[in-house]
Amino acid sequence: MEFAGKRLKGLIAATFTPMTSNSDINLPVIKQYVDYLVQKQHVRNIFVNGTTGEGMSLSVQERKCLAEEWVKQARGKMDNVIIHVGCLSLSDSKDLAAHAASCGADAISIVCPSFLKPSSLDALVLYMKEVAFAAPSLPFYYYHIPRLTGTTYQICELLRKAKENIPSFRGVKFTDVNLMDFGLCVSQYKEFDCLYGVDEQLLGALAFGAHGAVGSTYNYLGKKNGDMMAAFEGGNLQEARKIQCSLQEFLLFVFDMGWGLPEFKDIMSQISGIPLGPPRLPLYSSVKSDHHDSIRTKMLKLDLI
Amino acid sequence: MEFAGKRLKGLIAATFTPMTSNSDINLPVIKQYVDYLVQKQHVRNIFVNGTTGEGMSLSVQERKCLAEEWVKQARGKMDNVIIHVGCLSLSDSKDLAAHAASCGADAISIVCPSFLKPSSLDALVLYMKEVAFAAPSLPFYYYHIPRLTGTTYQICELLRKAKENIPSFRGVKFTDVNLMDFGLCVSQYKEFDCLYGVDEQLLGALAFGAHGAVGSTYNYLGKKNGDMMAAFEGGNLQEARKIQCSLQEFLLFVFDMGWGLPEFKDIMSQISGIPLGPPRLPLYSSVKSDHHDSIRTKMLKLDLI
Amino acid sequence: MEFAGKRLKGLIAATFTPMTSNSDINLPVIKQYVDYLVQKQHVRNIFVNGTTGEGMSLSVQERKCLAEEWVKQARGKMDNVIIHVGCLSLSDSKDLAAHAASCGADAISIVCPSFLKPSSLDALVLYMKEVAFAAPSLPFYYYHIPRLTGTTYQICELLRKAKENIPSFRGVKFTDVNLMDFGLCVSQYKEFDCLYGVDEQLLGALAFGAHGAVGSTYNYLGKKNGDMMAAFEGGNLQEARKIQCSLQEFLLFVFDMGWGLPEFKDIMSQISGIPLGPPRLPLYSSVKSDHHDSIRTKMLKLDLI
Amino acid sequence: MEFAGKRLKGLIAATFTPMTSNSDINLPVIKQYVDYLVQKQHVRNIFVNGTTGEGMSLSVQERKCLAEEWVKQARGKMDNVIIHVGCLSLSDSKDLAAHAASCGADAISIVCPSFLKPSSLDALVLYMKEVAFAAPSLPFYYYHIPRLTGTTYQICELLRKAKENIPSFRGVKFTDVNLMDFGLCVSQYKEFDCLYGVDEQLLGALAFGAHGAVGSTYNYLGKKNGDMMAAFEGGNLQEARKIQCSLQEFLLFVFDMGWGLPEFKDIMSQISGIPLGPPRLPLYSSVKSDHHDSIRTKMLKLDLI
Repeated sequence: MEFAGKRLKGLIAATFTPMTSNSDINLPVIKQYVDYLVQKQHVRNIFVNGTTGEGMSLSVQERKCLAEEWVKQARGKMDNVIIHVGCLSLSDSKDLAAHAASCGADAISIVCPSFLKPSSLDALVLYMKEVAFAAPSLPFYYYHIPRLTGTTYQICELLRKAKENIPSFRGVKFTDVNLMDFGLCVSQYKEFDCLYGVDEQLLGALAFGAHGAVGSTYNYLGKKNGDMMAAFEGGNLQEARKIQCSLQEFLLFVFDMGWGLPEFKDIMSQISGIPLGPPRLPLYSSVKSDHHDSIRTKMLKLDLI
Repeated sequence: MEFAGKRLKGLIAATFTPMTSNSDINLPVIKQYVDYLVQKQHVRNIFVNGTTGEGMSLSVQERKCLAEEWVKQARGKMDNVIIHVGCLSLSDSKDLAAHAASCGADAISIVCPSFLKPSSLDALVLYMKEVAFAAPSLPFYYYHIPRLTGTTYQICELLRKAKENIPSFRGVKFTDVNLMDFGLCVSQYKEFDCLYGVDEQLLGALAFGAHGAVGSTYNYLGKKNGDMMAAFEGGNLQEARKIQCSLQEFLLFVFDMGWGLPEFKDIMSQISGIPLGPPRLPLYSSVKSDHHDSIRTKMLKLDLI
Repeated sequence: MEFAGKRLKGLIAATFTPMTSNSDINLPVIKQYVDYLVQKQHVRNIFVNGTTGEGMSLSVQERKCLAEEWVKQARGKMDNVIIHVGCLSLSDSKDLAAHAASCGADAISIVCPSFLKPSSLDALVLYMKEVAFAAPSLPFYYYHIPRLTGTTYQICELLRKAKENIPSFRGVKFTDVNLMDFGLCVSQYKEFDCLYGVDEQLLGALAFGAHGAVGSTYNYLGKKNGDMMAAFEGGNLQEARKIQCSLQEFLLFVFDMGWGLPEFKDIMSQISGIPLGPPRLPLYSSVKSDHHDSIRTKMLKLDLI
Repeated sequence: MEFAGKRLKGLIAATFTPMTSNSDINLPVIKQYVDYLVQKQHVRNIFVNGTTGEGMSLSVQERKCLAEEWVKQARGKMDNVIIHVGCLSLSDSKDLAAHAASCGADAISIVCPSFLKPSSLDALVLYMKEVAFAAPSLPFYYYHIPRLTGTTYQICELLRKAKENIPSFRGVKFTDVNLMDFGLCVSQYKEFDCLYGVDEQLLGALAFGAHGAVGSTYNYLGKKNGDMMAAFEGGNLQEARKIQCSLQEFLLFVFDMGWGLPEFKDIMSQISGIPLGPPRLPLYSSVKSDHHDSIRTKMLKLDLI
């Protein structure tokens, strides 16, 4: 296959979707967003229309418009644009997969359908196969996020079955805390890219040989996380640990507020200066304007910005 | 409102979506399906494109085609066609809601988004409101199914907020085993229709005053369940209990096989003679041809067919 | 067996354990407690040292003292004293079972061990059998409360295996909202007593033929629940429903405060005038003195006291 | 305090409790067990009467006998004997704590009560405090194992409160996959020992600075895990990862059989040659004699024995 030699690695920002004040998509902001990631955060890979990007809250048409714009703006500036094409509907996913190929994306990925769950692991692999075959030239990644989908298959077994059935299968975005399963994926399937997705404990996955990481915090903490990965790879575990712990302390601050995705979108707007707008319903941000100072103060204190 | 005087009650079949052998939708079968429900099962209300109908596995366009055909075929034969317009995407749901109104549906309903979950109960009510306002002339029902969505708000509180914010709000399809919450809905909101959705324990909900029931077993066990409801309303609790227990024994037989929605679709084809086809991925039926006899034998033994 | 003709039915109060201000057991209060239940609440059966009684928080010796005192005080005044002898340790349970027999209890019951969970349903039945055989003359009841134990076997299957293996097995205290499983127990095992344990939805279980009910609210709302059961048995469903809904409204008021067992113990002290003391750690009551008025007001308004 | 300078670190075997064929405790085997751990597995610390030791399935008296024997046999051969004194009953735990101090144990630990769960984190700390004060001279460790107890407080917050209230508090046995919480414990409380308890992903915790590890596999895979820790500390991450992955592959083999604690006890008997007997009910081992060869073959193939 033409993508045989290319591997996904390093930091991959799971992008937020820029929206206007009434939650319509806001394409013109994307150019600025790409430049910010590359220049300020030193991030050269993006995962588009995923969880962070509220991909599931968008219509098929909106997702296509976004995919096209991200690919267009990233061209020549970034290394990889991965388009998340997961939906609840197989026909929509196939449509989005074919579109991703046609607009020049570098890879595609799907999450497990989360309302009607797969009847078995085999049924899930059949589902994945149909999507992958709609864009056979694109590397295909399974997106494992059991906390949101409610489906927990052993991923090292999924990799075995995917390898047998899907020629374009290339790896997994592994957003779970089960590092035994993750470790087995890394050690038993060296031909696949194992990208970790729980930002707050990336260091643990690096110890197991994670090839890269996909997450929302890499939008505004990409440089800091890049420093951590470099320290780790350079054998400076103390430094890597120090950075990871600062990041954890910041995330604890956020989680203790009861915050989640909507609030992280707001934080990204604050830190980057890019107007990303509010999230779309059913998400709703509870950040108040007087929170902005306390967030900034916390980040400064932790040497994160 | 024009719908003020009309109440949903009695049995409502959550319809399966007829498909061809390669899982395309199979519209021509719907006429036969409607006649079967009315004539053989004495069921005069249907809930279309819901969980049973694999609505979430269909594209927006497919859902519109199905809604139109069900409304068309039910006209003059049935009392109510409720179209489920729930999606993960608010814009898709609004689109489907407006379409349901335009094609003559009697009511709409949505499930809670299940991947990105509402930030709060208020966010969920805002979400519902936007969908309801896209079809303001149609009675709007919230579809509560926490086992599939992973979201468990107290529904009696949701009803309070919906009443204040959504003029077309009319009730709930309550698919959960929490009969305290259900009982409070019935007793505190007499203006709303409280439809129960856990077929295997409908009798418990009847004791609390359920106005009706929505479920998949009413497709092929509608008459039997109608007998149970009639016995209950007529004060013959012994008879109602006897029928409910037969139904439970049948469902235990099915659940003990590890079966679920895909297999119930197959059972409906067997019992009704209507070719509904296989489910769509990620669902996959594990019924083998030699199961058909054992299912039929079990149902005969339990006096269900 | 000597107990063959005796059946458990009606209301069974799961007693609180009277404690002094420093959480030592307070035996002298039990006489007053028994009189209160019989005279004011018209309750003639008690379930001792169970969840409500904080049995698991007591030492084996304390449980024996309590069992003896309850049996002694109930003699001649009550119909049945059931001693809960469930522990995490099988040897302790056998010890308590033998003691219950020796002190004149009417029946015993055990909950499923909740830390190290049974390896299988068969292992659980073996465990039950050993306890039952330590007191072979006493009717033995399985106490099903999956929300606390984390173990959910199908109880209708447990009954089948218990029937085959344990001569003294007599039924189940079923504290769960799964009324399909409960219904199957009632309909398939008429020789066993099926006692329902989710007070807030007892009416649903009555519809399925529950023989009785075990719960903590019967301590102070026994008379009211007795009225409900009488109305139901007399065919007056409207009246039964009305009472059950008042009870639900009261429980909603309590649950909305975030309250649970420790606070119900305090409420019982307030309503009955019996000084039951605080719960024992790890439970801790958050009732403040100014809550007492609001509880009383709510109960008066709902016609519960 | 006298224990101020002593820290727990390295591998700590969570010991199995030797039993006779009818599940009575088998004290005479303990001497051989200690020698095996020290000489063959190079393990010099033990955690007694914990989950692995079926401590919760034993009576208070049995636990005391075991504690005495382990302390006696370990004297002069091992560095630390930690006695788990957690129970459902506070009075039992206090009794066991005082006994542990009297018989010469080096530290005590308790798990969170798992049936009646603490009313709040503060209630849990009060509970811990009472146990700790029953043995004020012994270092006290909280044992966090939410998968079994069903209680998930943030441990970094528990550490903060324990530090303020319990002078003898010394750290945590952290048996969970949440490495953000674990990382925060390590980085924010350098005075406490943070011992990791999920054997199958210890390497991830080492990356966060785990001081040691407590687990059942260190009984028969202690030497191998010791090699891994040494490799990690020596900067040889590749080697550490290789060993951890072999261990994961072995554990996958075991878990795929549906096995758990009962079967691990059997494996320990096979590998060590020490007759540990069967587990006690409600645990029941499903290892058949023809499994023994396949286990040994697997371990040899993975270079684990």
